[in-house]
Amino acid sequence: MTNPIQEQTLRRVAEVFDKQVPFHNLLGLDIKRYDLDGVEVVINMKPELIGNIHQQILHGGVTATVLDVVGGLTVFAGLVASREDWSIEDLQSRLQTLGTIDLRVDYLRPGRGMQFTGTGTVIRAGNRVSVCRMELHNEQGSHIAFGTGTYMVG
Amino acid sequence: MTNPIQEQTLRRVAEVFDKQVPFHNLLGLDIKRYDLDGVEVVINMKPELIGNIHQQILHGGVTATVLDVVGGLTVFAGLVASREDWSIEDLQSRLQTLGTIDLRVDYLRPGRGMQFTGTGTVIRAGNRVSVCRMELHNEQGSHIAFGTGTYMVG
Amino acid sequence: MTNPIQEQTLRRVAEVFDKQVPFHNLLGLDIKRYDLDGVEVVINMKPELIGNIHQQILHGGVTATVLDVVGGLTVFAGLVASREDWSIEDLQSRLQTLGTIDLRVDYLRPGRGMQFTGTGTVIRAGNRVSVCRMELHNEQGSHIAFGTGTYMVG
Amino acid sequence: MTNPIQEQTLRRVAEVFDKQVPFHNLLGLDIKRYDLDGVEVVINMKPELIGNIHQQILHGGVTATVLDVVGGLTVFAGLVASREDWSIEDLQSRLQTLGTIDLRVDYLRPGRGMQFTGTGTVIRAGNRVSVCRMELHNEQGSHIAFGTGTYMVG
Repeated sequence: MTNPIQEQTLRRVAEVFDKQVPFHNLLGLDIKRYDLDGVEVVINMKPELIGNIHQQILHGGVTATVLDVVGGLTVFAGLVASREDWSIEDLQSRLQTLGTIDLRVDYLRPGRGMQFTGTGTVIRAGNRVSVCRMELHNEQGSHIAFGTGTYMVG
Repeated sequence: MTNPIQEQTLRRVAEVFDKQVPFHNLLGLDIKRYDLDGVEVVINMKPELIGNIHQQILHGGVTATVLDVVGGLTVFAGLVASREDWSIEDLQSRLQTLGTIDLRVDYLRPGRGMQFTGTGTVIRAGNRVSVCRMELHNEQGSHIAFGTGTYMVG
Repeated sequence: MTNPIQEQTLRRVAEVFDKQVPFHNLLGLDIKRYDLDGVEVVINMKPELIGNIHQQILHGGVTATVLDVVGGLTVFAGLVASREDWSIEDLQSRLQTLGTIDLRVDYLRPGRGMQFTGTGTVIRAGNRVSVCRMELHNEQGSHIAFGTGTYMVG
Repeated sequence: MTNPIQEQTLRRVAEVFDKQVPFHNLLGLDIKRYDLDGVEVVINMKPELIGNIHQQILHGGVTATVLDVVGGLTVFAGLVASREDWSIEDLQSRLQTLGTIDLRVDYLRPGRGMQFTGTGTVIRAGNRVSVCRMELHNEQGSHIAFGTGTYMVG
């Protein structure tokens, strides 16, 4: 179960990442779902995101961006879920320190499709550092890329 | 020394990456220099590239994008430099297969600055697969990020 | 179904990796299962493999070794499985070129336990390069580490 | 300049890593130099370290082990160097938490040679997490491998 502080924090973070990050707006990145179980980040193909005009595929930098955002939001959800007695101030302070330390992207297939969805799973949950594995699929369920990211969470 | 086919190929590739990749245009990515020794990719800060409005820093996805482009162009320059008897057709065919297999980004400092420059060095030069190390600096010479990428080149 | 050439090849490779690689003998690495579906590599804890005498845990280099071996054997099984008309000579020649290009290890928990088992899944299957994700668990099912490896297969 | 507590700590750590880590003894790993500027880890080729009997080359797991040890010792030296007022107790406590979070190894050339030397450079120095780039060369100066590691330091 989610308590009100956890719920309010995740809703607020989702709003910020959905509406108030200029680069997310430029790309059209959409935080479709965000709760204690994780996140679903969606991006619709549009001409400006293309990396290869002959093949009409997503630029690898867009893939990396989505996976990085998924990883950060997933480990932050894991941190929020790890305790029930967080204060809003504590969580805001943790959000300030949230940052990517390193990111690996494995490109599996050309980024063909109309809509891409990124999801993730925390594989190491720490009080300071967490590690996440991420995936990007297109609307037909093809795996486009995997990611592995190490994040500062405190 | 660069022979005419090598020179013409790199000039054409630079033009394509500079002007005809929609996502590069969206970001404002500029191929400042491209020759047999490598590449210099420049990006100027602009509001749309910001990842954190409070800190006014470059989004990590922009960093990953620049490093990935630098890596791909650097290993391709290395391939072009590896033989003097390339035909234009061979090189065009190699360019078609050029692709990122995997990419690691190490984020060292917040992406503060007005202009960011990416450069790279081939660390493993193969006929099928090459590996590159990349760096991103701001206009004051601060290291913003390192990258390591494995690329298909044939 | 496995044809005789596939079967014979995997059995021979398992024997070599199990008995004829000096470093595997030094560590006590055991190829417990090897078929077209993948591999199970087992290592029993022994005093010489310890990395920290106070904590009595497996050295991270042993973890990296097991994951690397698992990745190489898994992508090779995938290559063997990808065609039914391999000749023995073709497969021997492929085995000669089998090599790790890059490897990422994510250390999740201290390597406590009596017996460790490594398994893997091919995430990108190519004719030249394949990518694998690997896992190491102890005998109680705890995840000790994840790995991601890019391998030359041709 | 090194103060006595820094000097004593590094000398003690070098002794432990040189003599009291069972897996280092098994491999014959030698901490040749360790000071505030970094570390030099040396390993001599011997039959038990071979990964491929036909090619007589170092097993990739040995390479990963040396690079991981180099990374850990390098970031710890950086931590010790970062303050002059460490107490011995503080440093011992930091040493207890020292651990690899993730490691990337890029295999550049087959591990041919009689003696291999690993060195490293801190690329991100933090109070909790540090990142290091490592290199392995043989006695003729050939680059065998590069590494990148993220380490918990507090």
